[in-house]
Amino acid sequence: MDYVYGPGKNHLFVPGPVNIPEPVLRAMNRNNEDYRSPAIPAMTKNLLEDVKKIFKTSTGTPFLIPTTGTGAWESALTNTLSPGDRTVSFLIGQFSLLWIDQQQRLNFNVDVVESEWGQGANLDILAEKLAADHSHTIKAICIVHNETATGVTNNLATVRKLLDHYRHPALLLVDGVSSICALDFRMDEWGVDVALTGSQKALSLPTGLGIVCASPKALEASKSAKSVRVFFDWNDYLKFYKLGTFWPYTPSIQLLYGLRAALDLIFEEGLDNVIARHTRMGKATRLAVEAWGLKNCTQKEEWYSDTVTAVLVPPYIDSAEIVKRAWKRYNMSLGLGLNKVAGKVFRIGHLGNLNELQLLGCLAGVEMILKDVGYPVKLGSGVAAACAYLQNNIPMIPSRI
Amino acid sequence: MDYVYGPGKNHLFVPGPVNIPEPVLRAMNRNNEDYRSPAIPAMTKNLLEDVKKIFKTSTGTPFLIPTTGTGAWESALTNTLSPGDRTVSFLIGQFSLLWIDQQQRLNFNVDVVESEWGQGANLDILAEKLAADHSHTIKAICIVHNETATGVTNNLATVRKLLDHYRHPALLLVDGVSSICALDFRMDEWGVDVALTGSQKALSLPTGLGIVCASPKALEASKSAKSVRVFFDWNDYLKFYKLGTFWPYTPSIQLLYGLRAALDLIFEEGLDNVIARHTRMGKATRLAVEAWGLKNCTQKEEWYSDTVTAVLVPPYIDSAEIVKRAWKRYNMSLGLGLNKVAGKVFRIGHLGNLNELQLLGCLAGVEMILKDVGYPVKLGSGVAAACAYLQNNIPMIPSRI
Amino acid sequence: MDYVYGPGKNHLFVPGPVNIPEPVLRAMNRNNEDYRSPAIPAMTKNLLEDVKKIFKTSTGTPFLIPTTGTGAWESALTNTLSPGDRTVSFLIGQFSLLWIDQQQRLNFNVDVVESEWGQGANLDILAEKLAADHSHTIKAICIVHNETATGVTNNLATVRKLLDHYRHPALLLVDGVSSICALDFRMDEWGVDVALTGSQKALSLPTGLGIVCASPKALEASKSAKSVRVFFDWNDYLKFYKLGTFWPYTPSIQLLYGLRAALDLIFEEGLDNVIARHTRMGKATRLAVEAWGLKNCTQKEEWYSDTVTAVLVPPYIDSAEIVKRAWKRYNMSLGLGLNKVAGKVFRIGHLGNLNELQLLGCLAGVEMILKDVGYPVKLGSGVAAACAYLQNNIPMIPSRI
Amino acid sequence: MDYVYGPGKNHLFVPGPVNIPEPVLRAMNRNNEDYRSPAIPAMTKNLLEDVKKIFKTSTGTPFLIPTTGTGAWESALTNTLSPGDRTVSFLIGQFSLLWIDQQQRLNFNVDVVESEWGQGANLDILAEKLAADHSHTIKAICIVHNETATGVTNNLATVRKLLDHYRHPALLLVDGVSSICALDFRMDEWGVDVALTGSQKALSLPTGLGIVCASPKALEASKSAKSVRVFFDWNDYLKFYKLGTFWPYTPSIQLLYGLRAALDLIFEEGLDNVIARHTRMGKATRLAVEAWGLKNCTQKEEWYSDTVTAVLVPPYIDSAEIVKRAWKRYNMSLGLGLNKVAGKVFRIGHLGNLNELQLLGCLAGVEMILKDVGYPVKLGSGVAAACAYLQNNIPMIPSRI
Repeated sequence: MDYVYGPGKNHLFVPGPVNIPEPVLRAMNRNNEDYRSPAIPAMTKNLLEDVKKIFKTSTGTPFLIPTTGTGAWESALTNTLSPGDRTVSFLIGQFSLLWIDQQQRLNFNVDVVESEWGQGANLDILAEKLAADHSHTIKAICIVHNETATGVTNNLATVRKLLDHYRHPALLLVDGVSSICALDFRMDEWGVDVALTGSQKALSLPTGLGIVCASPKALEASKSAKSVRVFFDWNDYLKFYKLGTFWPYTPSIQLLYGLRAALDLIFEEGLDNVIARHTRMGKATRLAVEAWGLKNCTQKEEWYSDTVTAVLVPPYIDSAEIVKRAWKRYNMSLGLGLNKVAGKVFRIGHLGNLNELQLLGCLAGVEMILKDVGYPVKLGSGVAAACAYLQNNIPMIPSRI
Repeated sequence: MDYVYGPGKNHLFVPGPVNIPEPVLRAMNRNNEDYRSPAIPAMTKNLLEDVKKIFKTSTGTPFLIPTTGTGAWESALTNTLSPGDRTVSFLIGQFSLLWIDQQQRLNFNVDVVESEWGQGANLDILAEKLAADHSHTIKAICIVHNETATGVTNNLATVRKLLDHYRHPALLLVDGVSSICALDFRMDEWGVDVALTGSQKALSLPTGLGIVCASPKALEASKSAKSVRVFFDWNDYLKFYKLGTFWPYTPSIQLLYGLRAALDLIFEEGLDNVIARHTRMGKATRLAVEAWGLKNCTQKEEWYSDTVTAVLVPPYIDSAEIVKRAWKRYNMSLGLGLNKVAGKVFRIGHLGNLNELQLLGCLAGVEMILKDVGYPVKLGSGVAAACAYLQNNIPMIPSRI
Repeated sequence: MDYVYGPGKNHLFVPGPVNIPEPVLRAMNRNNEDYRSPAIPAMTKNLLEDVKKIFKTSTGTPFLIPTTGTGAWESALTNTLSPGDRTVSFLIGQFSLLWIDQQQRLNFNVDVVESEWGQGANLDILAEKLAADHSHTIKAICIVHNETATGVTNNLATVRKLLDHYRHPALLLVDGVSSICALDFRMDEWGVDVALTGSQKALSLPTGLGIVCASPKALEASKSAKSVRVFFDWNDYLKFYKLGTFWPYTPSIQLLYGLRAALDLIFEEGLDNVIARHTRMGKATRLAVEAWGLKNCTQKEEWYSDTVTAVLVPPYIDSAEIVKRAWKRYNMSLGLGLNKVAGKVFRIGHLGNLNELQLLGCLAGVEMILKDVGYPVKLGSGVAAACAYLQNNIPMIPSRI
Repeated sequence: MDYVYGPGKNHLFVPGPVNIPEPVLRAMNRNNEDYRSPAIPAMTKNLLEDVKKIFKTSTGTPFLIPTTGTGAWESALTNTLSPGDRTVSFLIGQFSLLWIDQQQRLNFNVDVVESEWGQGANLDILAEKLAADHSHTIKAICIVHNETATGVTNNLATVRKLLDHYRHPALLLVDGVSSICALDFRMDEWGVDVALTGSQKALSLPTGLGIVCASPKALEASKSAKSVRVFFDWNDYLKFYKLGTFWPYTPSIQLLYGLRAALDLIFEEGLDNVIARHTRMGKATRLAVEAWGLKNCTQKEEWYSDTVTAVLVPPYIDSAEIVKRAWKRYNMSLGLGLNKVAGKVFRIGHLGNLNELQLLGCLAGVEMILKDVGYPVKLGSGVAAACAYLQNNIPMIPSRI
């Protein structure tokens, strides 16, 4: 049944899909159920209430859509915008590129603001565009909170400040696929209108849920948005929310129970502790990279990502060889460099239900691979740097004291 | 974690989601994996080849889309048609109604052929429309193979005959959600252009895969179809098929392994044996209904469904009470009557990985419930009728001899 | 991985191992843990406290031994008796026979009181023996609460009354393997000194735990019992109980979590409701047997077992053929007739986490098999009789109202 | 359901129970089955044949006993020896001590050969005893292949040589609990008469199977051995082997399927590759210990264990604090020092289905803990030493090339 075998655990360090905690696997290990019984709506009601907490919203309306992040993007766009609408969208890596491609194919008028890959969204240009847009032709700002391809985190608080400063009514649509449940994300405080993530990212579930949350303003916009949509139409969900049956079509019973378990784990640890843990993981990884004498693809500290680190390799090394060797020799999965950075970076995903010793095993593995491919790394150096930081910063596990 | 508890197994007899076999549950009980490793593409390649067998096609191109049946509908339509295109679509129950609603919202010009609920698609009218359509304004015939709401199976071979007779080039789009892997379905022989099902139906998986298969003619149509689509765009899949990486976005690792196991079980039993088993289950159920003195919602034998039986109750009984009582007293899940037949029918789903003794337990339960709600059933009568038939027709389990 | 395949669920109606509820399967679906961490002792402490409830004892001391029922027997005997000690032991079927064989091989002086298979323990003879035993040579009464081979339940309250009447100090050792958690069992009230069961019986777990509970008098006896024992020595357990680490050797982590889940389910349903459910299942089965015109192996109503029914077949039928056919044609597991009743009875186990519709499916299957093997059963008759009773007696599932 | 929670995976580095591979967890995730159906005997037959391979025996007879290692000991002893028989038994740590305690309680005449903890069995004394034993009063040599408490591996080939040299007919009984499937073990070549292990050790299963293998000579001895035994009696197994039903009492269905999967994994990797992997893990661990400036409890290289390393800590550190902190802060389970070495050593178990990066994560964790407790370790030093060795010695995973 398995297509490949390797002894021991697979070390899964791609930035998604990520490791699923055992309690979540257990919760999903179940037969199907009738989703029209009284049980599933009762459960769904609680899930919808609880899922708002990971967005830090009290006013948002969440949708649990049987789709992927790509579908969640489409849901965000088609429910709030009409063909021809102008969006300002930031191209900073492969995933923002794909989202922009989607926006174009959905017939929006996409005003692309491009940065060098490794840089964050150029908010100066955003400021200019907002300042110039007296007639409010910009209908939406589309921005990834965290660009998974380059490990760049954008500053959403600043985006909100700019919109407020220019009193601009554009919707703020945020791809939080590799940030929500891992990075500090504040939907209400930052005035995000649509935020979205996928179940296989920091929620640490299998792929299959696109989780979208809409602000009241976004819901209002959906009433007049003319983009054609059926499967992704929020209105169908809202109709069933009112009926109390919640589902316009069949949900995955297993993912609902899995989401319940995943949220319970996050709440048990504490969302802020989860975020702090990701901060530690990101910092530790970057210290290792530095100790190896390698460069972070992310060019400035303000953009450093705590969920994924893209590591630049010297020109004489093909980063794809690192990923291949991780898989074939060390039973480890690392992220490839994509598109413009193919061959130039490999990526360490450090998001989701993960702890420090898992990461240290990964870092030790990377050191050996670097040596394998001819990079003159000092073995142990990255681990030492990470440990020096972690040893002072890992908290006791509260439930164990 | 469970929202309701009842001793013993839940008797799941809704027409989807259906019972998942233990080997499939086992196959899905696993951590996430990197879908860009060499393993997942290797596995996907085999899956795509094998999944064609359940459609009985050698020329079709399958797509395993992370979505539901509703999404699979949208995939079939938007990839083959352009806004304004005329479709002939048969309204014979709730699910064909929903598909028609989708077609309308996707801006097709839907020529609705309505039948009384309980009847099959009116193919005489189809013949008339085809005969009259000299200029080939009809771009597609949209038909459910099996209407899940009423338990009506349409005759697809006849549809093909009519199209051939009138040499009409319209595409034939078939919703096989509650038929494929259960009823006799022959994509190539019947010239079906797009066929689709959902993983939670006769494949006996969790919800989450919309499985769509396109004929060469449908693929050709997709090149000029102007419906806006991104998430559901076949072209993105085809691009990755060519690359050998197969996935334009993240699949559910668990569902891939689950599909592998589900197909293996079907092939081990033999697809024709699986279909024969469904024939037995349908026949046995109908014999029980008859013995109870109740009527099948399906008005003629030619339309009888071997995957779901909608049972009409006398006017003094609310069929919803039967479903409620099945759940609350007998730990059984039956299907509600929907829309026009709400309160009038309850449904017994008998599809997927199910055997005869499971069905007999269900039938015994229904008898007790009928008595509970005041219907003068003779206890044991339905079971006796079903047993009399089954005892002569159940084959030995080949692997056990 | 499976050695045989059959579509749908296996209908497991042997009197053990029995069906495992899904929540228990989930709870056991986990990696190993260090049993010397603080977690496992904390869990064990609660388990030991809770497991006493299924014995209805407040003064007993339970032992969770990594063994089977056979090992639990040995634990009960070797900890309380010395070689040469006289036991009175009742031979009423295969399992009491095996226990007596064990007693003999452990060098006790076994005073066997034999009954015809199908009858209960002869308590008149017990009364005589107690009356005659002025010098208290009888050290223990060994009795099965429920003989699994014949479906005979002994009256333990009467045994206690006799012991009290004759003021006899003999220990009362009870095999509750197919009774505890299913039949009314009252350790303290009946003055049982050692009671035991196996995890794979009414607790509905996998095989692997012999659960033994000792009265204060039994513990006292263990101090002077001279039977050689090491693995089964209670003293090793008691030593670790005092240390608070609980385990003299490695327990199965999975079974501990499974036991936790199993007890939680039993307490959620309510132990008395669990017992009442078994009463219903037993009664329904016997009504079916009667309707088929067959005889219960158990000769008098006072001995009828609510956990297993041994059905006598006419002389021209080999009951083994029924069991074989159940397996090969209907994917059902029935119990064989053992030893003296081999070929003469087949057994329906109706214990553990099971509900009425599951049983009715089994009964319908048995009817078809009876017909298969040439017995002139009226199809549906047994199911009708069972339904007539059940339909008036199944309660609503409380958690679902 | 979990008694403690910590984010990420638990790092399980006790020397048993060890990590269970996912395919094994999957195989065990199943309902009970009738063990008297044709399926389980068919499966058991293959298992018994295959399990011989892990003992490297073609002439041995294996027993899969529902018990723990302690029970397996008792099985080995009581089936081959009679009360009063003289055994020569080596006391070199806590587990050999416990086995000797069992031998004494089973009334054998135990000739204890004690070594300092950290040393191997004193084979010079064995030679003397054998030389002096002209009348062959020594009936059995009892020796642990690997002492789990101190990480000491005894040289069994030498034991055999001595027995052969002195033409001594004593049985050779070997505790292979922490060696078989991990260390080089050759039952036939070394003339081992009884070898045993537990499922939760290198086989990487849950606790619950005591796996015992008996040579023809041991089987012969069992015919005259007078130790009282019932549950552990080989003869009961042999009787059912002959019948082809294999089980004298109920086995754990789940563990049988688990064992099947575990053996399949071992054979897929190749038993010799599994052993080579353990060699690597042991060597890497010892290099780390050396780099930390700490001493191995094992005093000479010839005794170094490749399955567990006991690390001596300086007198000013309590090794229990290291274990406690591993658990509470790092979600890691290390082994305590036991009895004579309590407080003085902590143990790293590196056996079972484990790979190098998992070990490196553990070693990095140990470094941080050492720092936590005030030992002046150079962070990264142990990992560096282990990596330097591993990077040159880890082979490609064959199935991935």
